[in-house]
Amino acid sequence: MNGAEALLRTLVGSDVDVCFANPGTSEMHFVASLDRVSEMRAVLTLFEGVATGAADGYARLAGKPAATLLHLGPGLANSWANLHNARRAQVPLVNVVGDHATYHQRFDSRLQSDLWGLARSTSAWQRSAARAEDVGADAADAVVASYGPPGRIATLIVPADVSWNEGGAPARRRPVPPCPLVPPETIENVAKVLRSGERVVLLIGGAAMRERGLDAAARIARATGAKLLCETFPTVHSRGGGLPDVEKLAYYGEMAMAQLDRTQHLVLAGARAPSSFFAYPDKPSDLVPAGVTVHELAGPAHDVTAALGALADALGADAPGTRPAGGRPDRPSGRLTTESMAAAVGHLLPDGAVVVDESITSGVSVPAATAGGPRHDWLALAGGSIGQGLPAATGAAVASPGRRVLCLEADGSAMYTLQALWTQAREGLDVTTVLLANRSYAILQFELARVGAAGNGERARAMLDLHDPVLDFVSLSRGMGVPAERATTADELAALLERSFAEDGPMLVEAVLA
Amino acid sequence: MNGAEALLRTLVGSDVDVCFANPGTSEMHFVASLDRVSEMRAVLTLFEGVATGAADGYARLAGKPAATLLHLGPGLANSWANLHNARRAQVPLVNVVGDHATYHQRFDSRLQSDLWGLARSTSAWQRSAARAEDVGADAADAVVASYGPPGRIATLIVPADVSWNEGGAPARRRPVPPCPLVPPETIENVAKVLRSGERVVLLIGGAAMRERGLDAAARIARATGAKLLCETFPTVHSRGGGLPDVEKLAYYGEMAMAQLDRTQHLVLAGARAPSSFFAYPDKPSDLVPAGVTVHELAGPAHDVTAALGALADALGADAPGTRPAGGRPDRPSGRLTTESMAAAVGHLLPDGAVVVDESITSGVSVPAATAGGPRHDWLALAGGSIGQGLPAATGAAVASPGRRVLCLEADGSAMYTLQALWTQAREGLDVTTVLLANRSYAILQFELARVGAAGNGERARAMLDLHDPVLDFVSLSRGMGVPAERATTADELAALLERSFAEDGPMLVEAVLA
Repeated sequence: MNGAEALLRTLVGSDVDVCFANPGTSEMHFVASLDRVSEMRAVLTLFEGVATGAADGYARLAGKPAATLLHLGPGLANSWANLHNARRAQVPLVNVVGDHATYHQRFDSRLQSDLWGLARSTSAWQRSAARAEDVGADAADAVVASYGPPGRIATLIVPADVSWNEGGAPARRRPVPPCPLVPPETIENVAKVLRSGERVVLLIGGAAMRERGLDAAARIARATGAKLLCETFPTVHSRGGGLPDVEKLAYYGEMAMAQLDRTQHLVLAGARAPSSFFAYPDKPSDLVPAGVTVHELAGPAHDVTAALGALADALGADAPGTRPAGGRPDRPSGRLTTESMAAAVGHLLPDGAVVVDESITSGVSVPAATAGGPRHDWLALAGGSIGQGLPAATGAAVASPGRRVLCLEADGSAMYTLQALWTQAREGLDVTTVLLANRSYAILQFELARVGAAGNGERARAMLDLHDPVLDFVSLSRGMGVPAERATTADELAALLERSFAEDGPMLVEAVLA
Repeated sequence: MNGAEALLRTLVGSDVDVCFANPGTSEMHFVASLDRVSEMRAVLTLFEGVATGAADGYARLAGKPAATLLHLGPGLANSWANLHNARRAQVPLVNVVGDHATYHQRFDSRLQSDLWGLARSTSAWQRSAARAEDVGADAADAVVASYGPPGRIATLIVPADVSWNEGGAPARRRPVPPCPLVPPETIENVAKVLRSGERVVLLIGGAAMRERGLDAAARIARATGAKLLCETFPTVHSRGGGLPDVEKLAYYGEMAMAQLDRTQHLVLAGARAPSSFFAYPDKPSDLVPAGVTVHELAGPAHDVTAALGALADALGADAPGTRPAGGRPDRPSGRLTTESMAAAVGHLLPDGAVVVDESITSGVSVPAATAGGPRHDWLALAGGSIGQGLPAATGAAVASPGRRVLCLEADGSAMYTLQALWTQAREGLDVTTVLLANRSYAILQFELARVGAAGNGERARAMLDLHDPVLDFVSLSRGMGVPAERATTADELAALLERSFAEDGPMLVEAVLA
């Protein structure tokens, strides 16, 4: 057996059975092995950023890593921005990158580059496989490394001769390390703070934003009067269906500090201490108000869900109550605005949906419009690097057959990785993309003023404007094989969403916002 | 004056007056300064790989660097693959990357990443500006560093507070270092080899592939009987109009070794010793046949054109003769094949055109069909990282108003950086894209067999096939504002090329190859 086949067999034996791929010459033996290892589902992408963004979306819902297959330094570089997002989402991801044959590298041929340095700049674990005999073990190590905890990027570089040489042997699956429990003293210390009668904010994030964590956090808040907040860009936020509706920490620092005003204690449960996303002149980067004492209940390497449950029990909090039925907004009509768009989404969101949110400024009203609706999972742009939405929706759909994926995608952001649509068409994935066309980098128009950049004349504004020419997303989507229609009223949007939710396969609706 | 304005004024004062940009929040002060520094032409791109690919194409024709403007680590990562190509093309490029404010970095906010490590993996020179007072000098240093020789990537990282703080001062332009002459002894030693009567191959590359270098090389070959070859992927190859037609070193090793068969001496003039692009099992990577003595006349850091001229003079070679009028192929008709496509291009290529070649397998017949035509410059994929053609064509057109840019673009490669079309429309650039649709990664189908990858069954083949669904490039191009038509016969292609060459602005012709 050659190294490539040993690698592939080790991956599937380690429960990594989806690979988002964009291979080149140095990965041809991996590709050839697909015919002998039918347990691996290989999903072709037209651009590497689609592969890693899909692996991110997949891992968020599957709870296990996907593999990627990338070609040399340029392939890894093209995938890097969505690796960054996956890193911030703390999902497991096994990143397989082909390299030139070991003996070929001294020739510094045209496609040679600093692949190792590039991998190091984005990976928590990396290794370059040296021999076909070892690549199975390398792959098993990569899988276990990817689990962390917390989940992380494990990059395995595979030179072409390691793939094609004989002597490969699949390695046995390694045990996934458990997520350690928080020590009882920590829980007791935090319980004391919550019992003190002082003003406490409980800020949750990470794994705490799913059913069990939300329930425990809500019990704690009810029992103690603590204020409950959650992080701004969660990896997976389970919502609707009567789950506790948690207020998000605001994106902008002033608003976040207002949420924390008069707090005496800040308890972190899977979330980091608040700091601003960007720096601004004369505005603080550290958003923890002076005089607030910060307590960490659980960091990302600990079982935050169990810690919240133990804390709730220690506080003698009541069990979760019945889940009141939520309410949906009415079906909207008339002008298509961010509000009526949100109402259409909230009115129609299917039960069990996955919402992938790269809506940037345009999606501001959607969370409120969906909080009372059916149960769904919300995936946010955890690393802030745009171009993640369409790929993550692709991977989420691969991970969740039978669930409708709704991708809220801003027009500027969509153009970074639009190629994801082709993979959605090819795989027949149930993804509905609402392409939010405000025809600008709207957030930057706001930021230009916000950073105090003087001038804001015509030439600066032109850098933030996407009107010239207007992007026709219906044409772009159809060009990649995804059916598409344009909505210019709320009625049209609602009708198109209804149609897409009732049909199998992908569809894009360009929502031209007034 | 703030740092951003000092940076911008230093760039334009250093003759860097085009900036291919995709800015974010941390670059807003640079954007705002555009209104105060009207000498800088800022060209907006929708994806960072378009910006760097355009800067590559621009530098190849302008003979000076463009600047880029990129946003943080993800922006640099998205631009990396085309920086790799620019690095291999040895063009000067001033890569400006915004960073978080210096004091903000300790918060490790969501968009923070290993920007320095990433920059190091692709740049020959890099610096992170520390103070508004110094950023002008930093920029002047970056510009001069980019010139080399040879040309290289100089990356200047600019934290947001360095941009917005006052105290900036534009720095004076630094003198560009001259390209050193080759020592006379080297020329004399190579002249001896050429006079020896033994079998010599003169392999030229780099700057030698423009008029003066080609003329000198042809004189040497005529005077000595040496065989003249040129590198496979030239940065700029001036062709047609009676210029010496130089045989290219073949891409595949066996063919290249056949070209070098029975050679006793290999003289390198701006080219590297031949090695194979990829490694293959049981095939050599080193393509210099055993027994061949290699002599370097001039490397990339020396003035190869002057060296060839001096060598020709030392050999008493005749001056260049008259340039015989070339011949164009007849206008083709009937089926649209790689051959009839090439004939249509050869029949119609405008005088003074710039050909950007990312045709991969489909363009194999175009060089022969254009060799006898009018004078043109040919830009090859110097670094081998696909997704360079459309961006490079964009930058080449910015550098060459009044010249028609013809981009020969393979379908698989086009999908990496298709966003370039939007910038072509926005800027009204005279680019004609012939989109060569064979609906596969055809080269990989060949490579799969060539690397000896057994199997080649259905699942492997599916990874190399782009039929499901078919990409509709007419729809994709129109979606980005570039007029587009489809050609399915040679007659249609010729008529559409004729139309595009006669009109201002961009057009895309999807050539569906039989």
